[in-house]
Amino acid sequence: MATIIALKDIEAAAARLKTIIHDIPLSSSKTFSQSTGAELYLKFENLQKTGSFKVRGAYNKIMKLCEQGSLSAVVASSAGNHAQGVAFAANAAGVGATIVMPRSAPIAKVQATQGYGCKVELHGVIYDDAYDRAMAIQEETGAVFIHPFDDDDIIAGQGTIGLEILRDLPGVDIIFVPAGGGGLLAGIASCVKQVNPRVRIVGVQAAGAQNIARSFRSQTMVIDEKLHTIADGIAVKKPGARTMEIINTYVDDMLTVSDSDIAATILMLLERSKQVVEPAGAVSLAAALHNRKLNIEGKKIVCLLSGGNIDVSFIHRIVEKGLLTRGRSMKFQTVMRDVPGSLEKFAAIVADNNANITMVQHDRLKADLDIDEAILHVVCEVGGFEHGRQVVSDLEREGYRVLMESEADPANEDQNENS
Amino acid sequence: MATIIALKDIEAAAARLKTIIHDIPLSSSKTFSQSTGAELYLKFENLQKTGSFKVRGAYNKIMKLCEQGSLSAVVASSAGNHAQGVAFAANAAGVGATIVMPRSAPIAKVQATQGYGCKVELHGVIYDDAYDRAMAIQEETGAVFIHPFDDDDIIAGQGTIGLEILRDLPGVDIIFVPAGGGGLLAGIASCVKQVNPRVRIVGVQAAGAQNIARSFRSQTMVIDEKLHTIADGIAVKKPGARTMEIINTYVDDMLTVSDSDIAATILMLLERSKQVVEPAGAVSLAAALHNRKLNIEGKKIVCLLSGGNIDVSFIHRIVEKGLLTRGRSMKFQTVMRDVPGSLEKFAAIVADNNANITMVQHDRLKADLDIDEAILHVVCEVGGFEHGRQVVSDLEREGYRVLMESEADPANEDQNENS
Repeated sequence: MATIIALKDIEAAAARLKTIIHDIPLSSSKTFSQSTGAELYLKFENLQKTGSFKVRGAYNKIMKLCEQGSLSAVVASSAGNHAQGVAFAANAAGVGATIVMPRSAPIAKVQATQGYGCKVELHGVIYDDAYDRAMAIQEETGAVFIHPFDDDDIIAGQGTIGLEILRDLPGVDIIFVPAGGGGLLAGIASCVKQVNPRVRIVGVQAAGAQNIARSFRSQTMVIDEKLHTIADGIAVKKPGARTMEIINTYVDDMLTVSDSDIAATILMLLERSKQVVEPAGAVSLAAALHNRKLNIEGKKIVCLLSGGNIDVSFIHRIVEKGLLTRGRSMKFQTVMRDVPGSLEKFAAIVADNNANITMVQHDRLKADLDIDEAILHVVCEVGGFEHGRQVVSDLEREGYRVLMESEADPANEDQNENS
Repeated sequence: MATIIALKDIEAAAARLKTIIHDIPLSSSKTFSQSTGAELYLKFENLQKTGSFKVRGAYNKIMKLCEQGSLSAVVASSAGNHAQGVAFAANAAGVGATIVMPRSAPIAKVQATQGYGCKVELHGVIYDDAYDRAMAIQEETGAVFIHPFDDDDIIAGQGTIGLEILRDLPGVDIIFVPAGGGGLLAGIASCVKQVNPRVRIVGVQAAGAQNIARSFRSQTMVIDEKLHTIADGIAVKKPGARTMEIINTYVDDMLTVSDSDIAATILMLLERSKQVVEPAGAVSLAAALHNRKLNIEGKKIVCLLSGGNIDVSFIHRIVEKGLLTRGRSMKFQTVMRDVPGSLEKFAAIVADNNANITMVQHDRLKADLDIDEAILHVVCEVGGFEHGRQVVSDLEREGYRVLMESEADPANEDQNENS
């Protein structure tokens, strides 16, 4: 049996964090309880300081080093939430920090990290370059390197979330936890299993980056460098040795979710919970909503939404896709006579239906068109699938042939999402 | 002097609501405090049951009627938050409800209202049609009509927000409140001015729908039926007689904000606070952020974010606009030689800069082009204005003439938004 992180260390971390972080109580969700048949609660760590749970481990680590002696500076490498967590924690502890970020890091994340008052160094193209540079800085300056997950004090800090969940919902049956490097999952498992071994701990990864899930199933260390998922925050090539040891021993199950389920979950959180959650943070709820084999009906479950630092261009894509799959945006082509007045007549039919044309392209270059015909490519906003069908049927009644290019009405699947 | 709503009536409303609604404490905002120089707090009523404050007044009204005798059913007309508020409140009180909505109401709002277990009747094109139908139902069935704002029990219910703000922040200096019909503003003014007349109450409207602001300034009832704003939730043709009487007497000031300031505020709330707030709900913060004449530096101010029921297609437009104004999306045209390989060379320069082309159109039909030239219309995603300038300068070095079509870098304005 692997040695777990001691409960007293997690409690000590909670004491350090008490005045530093937001205490966000569990929220019960009627919408998601109805969709799943479970009694479903959400833990909104997207609302945590710096927009993710990472500040917990970072602050615990840095403060413990401060208590032990003369810590003058820290260094870390990250393209994401760990950068902001360490920057904020170092600033709160009054310690200098250098964060090395790859040049590909979104400008908003760079600015947010600088905003916490630390030095940001942009280096290399990918994370590994930034990591090498951070190691060099450690060597040159004596600053202490803060690992994003494979460190007992980091794990203890993340584990404090377990205490909060057990305080708010002592009768909890299952906790779903996002997993990338495994620090969050190992921390929560360490905490919860010592307090109440009856509670099931389920880790969740993206299908395109599931090294912890594979390592868990095979009980060997699986390292796959080819990662492909929208959940960049949990796309980790190599799980931690220490985190994996704890996960193998104390976690009950590992699940994976598809990118399209993650995207659908983010859209539902925007619409129903009025909350912005990043892809890595939404995998826990995605698993509860989309895994039909889960036996969660009637159970008290908690989905940990671990962060909210999603890039605005990404929200844009999620919503665009969501508009299409929900029939709110409709894409089609139609053939019309290429004579004056044709477009006007077409537009009038659409307008009479109170639908809004957002894109139209006129195309004469197609081999099988008659000389007096043209193709119109059209995108229009409608109220939903039913409204869209009404527009199409009115066009067809007036003699237009309509070829749909957007997805068809997914019939009964749609129900679930709106319940 | 107008008679104010008695504090004891607001306290009675709070007692009725205690187990029915969410109690969401004030959140301090470091980001918005830095932007304004004030000590700024947000009251997130977008997280309230039904996604807005409307449930407060509706439940207080319905429960008071229940306590007074035999209420069997209620009827209301609304295209928005009042519909969901009344539906939820009637369901919680065990009373039948019919909500009349215009056919133009978004399908998501119709489904949400039905989801609370009430009868939804779609009638007419605009709100006025739905109102007439609700009046007819009242006549036919004896159901009690629940007015969206001009009713003392509704006003008392909305006023309970005042008690919560004073409890969480007794030293508050100014409260910014969105205003449409005026029920929320009259309720909060009634509450706060009785408890602590030192606290300033400022109402905020959209510039394109400012009947309360004009009525307040002229101390007469101004009715303007030509409304034009994205803040549909507070676009009201005629303020309430009762609400206007209270506002004229007890509110300290009325402000207005532009649609573009509202949109920018919504985007900042998405990015910084991880919260979805609807246009009507964001006007309070928009006023605090964008009104440079406000003397709020060092003051304790509360911005009430009154609702979060924003349509997903609208989030899409807000983000799209935000990507352009922040230099994250760049639109330009360039002239290139219309020969094989031209597009490839162009695309290679953009790709070498790690920028992502999202739209390209090839156009030969322009009078002043040489026979071997074509225009490319291009949209591409970049990291920000600086990255965009880099792409353009690389293109220009290779001989491409670039004509920008997206907005220019607003230089120092940009700073404010990212602080």
